[in-house]
Amino acid sequence: MQVASDSPSTFDLEAYSCQRRQLIEERLDEYLSERKPEKLWQAMRYSVLAGGKRLRALLAMAAAEAVYLTNTASRGVGSESAVWPTVVPLCCAIEMVHAMSLVHDDLPAMDNDDFRRGKPTNHKVFGEAVAILAGDALFIMANEILVTKTPPTVDREALIKVVAELAQAVGPEGMVAGQIYDLAFTGAAEKIEKKEIYPEDIAMIETIHKYKTAAFIAFSARAGARLAGASASQLAWFGQFAEILGLAFQVADDLLDCTGNMKDLGKTPGKDQAANKATWVTCFGMEAARAKLSELEDAGLTLLDNSDLEPSSRPVLQALLQYAIHRKS
Amino acid sequence: MQVASDSPSTFDLEAYSCQRRQLIEERLDEYLSERKPEKLWQAMRYSVLAGGKRLRALLAMAAAEAVYLTNTASRGVGSESAVWPTVVPLCCAIEMVHAMSLVHDDLPAMDNDDFRRGKPTNHKVFGEAVAILAGDALFIMANEILVTKTPPTVDREALIKVVAELAQAVGPEGMVAGQIYDLAFTGAAEKIEKKEIYPEDIAMIETIHKYKTAAFIAFSARAGARLAGASASQLAWFGQFAEILGLAFQVADDLLDCTGNMKDLGKTPGKDQAANKATWVTCFGMEAARAKLSELEDAGLTLLDNSDLEPSSRPVLQALLQYAIHRKS
Repeated sequence: MQVASDSPSTFDLEAYSCQRRQLIEERLDEYLSERKPEKLWQAMRYSVLAGGKRLRALLAMAAAEAVYLTNTASRGVGSESAVWPTVVPLCCAIEMVHAMSLVHDDLPAMDNDDFRRGKPTNHKVFGEAVAILAGDALFIMANEILVTKTPPTVDREALIKVVAELAQAVGPEGMVAGQIYDLAFTGAAEKIEKKEIYPEDIAMIETIHKYKTAAFIAFSARAGARLAGASASQLAWFGQFAEILGLAFQVADDLLDCTGNMKDLGKTPGKDQAANKATWVTCFGMEAARAKLSELEDAGLTLLDNSDLEPSSRPVLQALLQYAIHRKS
Repeated sequence: MQVASDSPSTFDLEAYSCQRRQLIEERLDEYLSERKPEKLWQAMRYSVLAGGKRLRALLAMAAAEAVYLTNTASRGVGSESAVWPTVVPLCCAIEMVHAMSLVHDDLPAMDNDDFRRGKPTNHKVFGEAVAILAGDALFIMANEILVTKTPPTVDREALIKVVAELAQAVGPEGMVAGQIYDLAFTGAAEKIEKKEIYPEDIAMIETIHKYKTAAFIAFSARAGARLAGASASQLAWFGQFAEILGLAFQVADDLLDCTGNMKDLGKTPGKDQAANKATWVTCFGMEAARAKLSELEDAGLTLLDNSDLEPSSRPVLQALLQYAIHRKS
């Protein structure tokens, strides 16, 4: 492993993110400009424009920039901003799909959460019917944005592949499957006692995390790379790197549920424990979770050191990985 | 108007539909082959493979056949079955999206229906959480089927356009908007009294029907035509014809809610009246609804008479229009 990656990242992620986040949020604001029926569009805007880290969108953008810088390096061209118009619609679609998943997950029939990002959840404000429909609308519209706003310079075959991979990442063999497993494991200890689930199923927890969180994060990076013209080996690299990042993000989330507070998290902490959810922490303890995080960080950094990406494009990827792991909210 | 269209259709719609319905259902069964998590896939299969008229899929297929027969007529080639491989994935995607909309509409937070097609609704069997997620999964997977299973011979630009138009037809400026309006008008008389809605809003009812029902039906026909290589004027024609068919379908639905019985309908009749929904019948009465249907039938038949479609492709379109109007369930 090279020294550079072992030392703590000195990359200013906040400065990097700030400009790009603004670009994405301005575009989201434009795409979601209010129209009739007002209540529906207000509900959609409420959850998409409620802030948030925009980690998935930033990762898509960083991946696109890395591919662009790498593939144009020999020609000596290239400011990374040249690739922004190519990926901003994708970034918006990603944030809309992410918001949709949160709105539906928070519903009374699901996790029944009252707070998200420090604000009442969508159904608390707009009612359950509108929240369900706003969630549906956000996923549907994400597809529309992706195919109608991605510039015509992007290869059509690549665009179609991104639509397919989005569906695979968030559908019944991706995020939706993860949510079903998550619900199935709620009240795990009790269910093991009643033999509704078995202790060995708990070993599935990494698989569940892959479905629930990592698949969509991996999609985000791969899709950004693909629209920027990534080669097959670059795509494979981003898939691998972002899956590690995604798994780490989820383990960190499990830890934060124990150690975080309402103010930092913006949502009710301790809910996993209370609901007896199967998480890294509830199943294996905090020490094991911290060890897992450290293992994932090493794996990610090693992958980064061994990548063929243009050196100037790596610090942001390292910073995003370490942010996913060491964040406080 | 030509004599042919005025006389009752002698076209055997049941024979036409039977073969095609089987083809579509076999493919749906294959696409939705059961996998893990079982409960999710069972819930998806339950609502998609529960039978149903398959009107939207059949319309997509009839439109594709009509375009194919018309555009190959001069070359003397063409059995309409040649176009089936091109449109069957679209037909499956349409039926999955339709099933998704029914699963979500039936939820307790929405229309709170216990029966659909003579069977308990999805959430009655699988619970609310799974029903919400199965609905999400069906829409997501419909997109995947459309882009991964439509044969590579189909022009990529046309395929992307179909993805975009699907989102427009069922999203927040289509079906989802219609459902929001529908919920807003539930308890119409009482709400007019309380000045929560105004009598003039009721005039919006045709607009609501356009969003809620006709937009997706029009999409189905246009998309089938587009994948089969329709010209711009053919696309416009199918959009117009199918919107008339879709509006008629909804007025007929409103009438059936009054005149139908549980056995024929497979769902609880009289619910519109009970919930004081704003429908053609509750707002304007049964006679006005029947007059509207007759007006729509005339408009559809006139359009058909004036079309440039190959004559042999018209009887099925006429039969589908008249089925939408005169059906008993």
